[in-house]
Amino acid sequence: MRVPDEANSPFLVRQERLRSLMQDRQLSLLVITNLTNIYYLTGFRGSAGVAVFGLEGGHLWVDPRYTLQAGEDARGVTVSEERGPLHTAVGRWITRRRVRKVGYEDTNLTCAQYHNLEQNCRRGVHLVAAGGLVEELRLVKDSGEIRRIREAGRVTVEVFEEVLPLIRPGAHEADLAAEIDYRMRLRGAEGAAFETIVASGARSALPHARPSSKRLGQSELVILDLGAILQGYAADLTRTVFLGKPSRRVRQLYGAVLESQQRVLETLRAGVRAGKADGAARQLLKRRGLDKYFTHSTGHGVGLEVHEKPRLGRGEKTRLEAGQVVTAEPGIYLEGFGGIRIEDTALVGPNGAEVLTPASKANWIIN
Amino acid sequence: MRVPDEANSPFLVRQERLRSLMQDRQLSLLVITNLTNIYYLTGFRGSAGVAVFGLEGGHLWVDPRYTLQAGEDARGVTVSEERGPLHTAVGRWITRRRVRKVGYEDTNLTCAQYHNLEQNCRRGVHLVAAGGLVEELRLVKDSGEIRRIREAGRVTVEVFEEVLPLIRPGAHEADLAAEIDYRMRLRGAEGAAFETIVASGARSALPHARPSSKRLGQSELVILDLGAILQGYAADLTRTVFLGKPSRRVRQLYGAVLESQQRVLETLRAGVRAGKADGAARQLLKRRGLDKYFTHSTGHGVGLEVHEKPRLGRGEKTRLEAGQVVTAEPGIYLEGFGGIRIEDTALVGPNGAEVLTPASKANWIIN
Repeated sequence: MRVPDEANSPFLVRQERLRSLMQDRQLSLLVITNLTNIYYLTGFRGSAGVAVFGLEGGHLWVDPRYTLQAGEDARGVTVSEERGPLHTAVGRWITRRRVRKVGYEDTNLTCAQYHNLEQNCRRGVHLVAAGGLVEELRLVKDSGEIRRIREAGRVTVEVFEEVLPLIRPGAHEADLAAEIDYRMRLRGAEGAAFETIVASGARSALPHARPSSKRLGQSELVILDLGAILQGYAADLTRTVFLGKPSRRVRQLYGAVLESQQRVLETLRAGVRAGKADGAARQLLKRRGLDKYFTHSTGHGVGLEVHEKPRLGRGEKTRLEAGQVVTAEPGIYLEGFGGIRIEDTALVGPNGAEVLTPASKANWIIN
Repeated sequence: MRVPDEANSPFLVRQERLRSLMQDRQLSLLVITNLTNIYYLTGFRGSAGVAVFGLEGGHLWVDPRYTLQAGEDARGVTVSEERGPLHTAVGRWITRRRVRKVGYEDTNLTCAQYHNLEQNCRRGVHLVAAGGLVEELRLVKDSGEIRRIREAGRVTVEVFEEVLPLIRPGAHEADLAAEIDYRMRLRGAEGAAFETIVASGARSALPHARPSSKRLGQSELVILDLGAILQGYAADLTRTVFLGKPSRRVRQLYGAVLESQQRVLETLRAGVRAGKADGAARQLLKRRGLDKYFTHSTGHGVGLEVHEKPRLGRGEKTRLEAGQVVTAEPGIYLEGFGGIRIEDTALVGPNGAEVLTPASKANWIIN
């Protein structure tokens, strides 16, 4: 009896689950072009590649740069090196198979790539939009994925605590962001899961401000939004601090966001609708007259991508499931004044959620 | 008379040039979804947004996260905030115009986005694949762009020279890559233009190796491939070094790649076909019996993206133009043994090319 290689197993399990979704949709083949999905399914991680899964085997096309690497890393697929355009090769390969219904990732494939693929498939092959199938599998994390996200969360919190003493008037936003990214790398992260945000003063009112050459000033709010990526998996953490002695107004605003975020975390558990978690944040802010400053959704899934499903947005009907990892991140943004956002990455469980980014929220006043 | 705002002018010039290309193609409107192209045309740089240019004005749709920023940064366009899917809003807006032929970026728009756009356009609107129009404009750089790439090249070289003393047996590949990225940031770069490569020993034979936890060893080749990004513009530099005393064979291999790269740089000038620059590298390596180890093309354009047109590849017929910025980067990869690549970013001029990444290639032996 052949004992399955331990390293293979999560990938082969995912491929089996994908095949079962393909059968439900009566797809003979599924063309995977989203590189994150290819990594999820095979373990191969490159900047180019196309995979095709059939009901029996899988196939991966790469260009010569990746032949060695794909040979080493990819599980459950036959690797082919291709010097020309990959979609052309895939189209021709499909043509040689006796298949009719072939799915493709319409949420990833560009119109130009689609035409290339289609023109190389024989007549009679029916290309079917099937975007989101792999993303559906990725919604609930397996134990290896949770371990990696937990680890990414740990590194993120450690780095946040390490740089906290550097958050002082006079420090440049961009230098602080560089420090954060550097320290994540030294702690074993592949890098930042997204562009680290350090936004101070009025700039903190821009929810996606890029770090600038601005120096932090006394009596300013500072938003820090950071996340390490580890073995492909992300974490996402935001804390807001105040430099100096906050006014009563700032204290009230911070308290409202903190309470709102706490409500979200208390709401998260398997079976709850995503929109309910969003509503929890929005309701509390509404009671304080602050909901109009809350201009984004309450959270999003985290995994191989730092923004993935489910979305915790207004009226979202999807029910959360145990094993999902999501953020809870209400924020308010007052133009010209500043912004406050508090965010954690949390693992949804049957009876509640576990925060995977347990950095302090109480020590937000830096004197 | 209205004096044009200095800060506006490059963007307005680009928009005018785009309109002239649109007229050639008889497009009433052009939908721009490629975010790099949106930045090039308007100065707005975000993670989401759709722009539409008509023969008179321009329009930019952003979600609420970017309303303030787009209002500050975007030139020559009216900014609209949109809370729903942007492609839906754009489709509806197009419907209200009296237009027939509307171009879209088929090389960027996904099939799903296309369907969304199409379903929201009224019957009679004819959507035409027009990918690559803005990329055509981006081929030749204006003086402001060249200044930025030159600056990115300078920072890249400075950082390479700064980390050279750290390239020693015992150092971790990943830590060196982190040092490089950190020092680029401290020197004003927004970050690395691509994932910095530090690949040593047999790993240097993987042209796109990710930095690993491997330590550099004595008597190993080490490839360093790095590039800063500054105000959106990239540079790209590769050097290969040897730790210890290289064998005669290694010296011969290095000499061949160096000479091959020199030939490419000598070939680069306005009017020359891109394929000729590639041929120059390949011919020399062929004479040494090494061409079979040269598994990629000789170079690529550099600008807002680190890989853009023109491609210096086998048989490419495009003629180079003054103001283009390209890399010259022959490399050889011997499985199990190691790899050698030498790369510069160069500005094509009427009579030759100027190297924008002038780091030493002679001091490659580290004892």
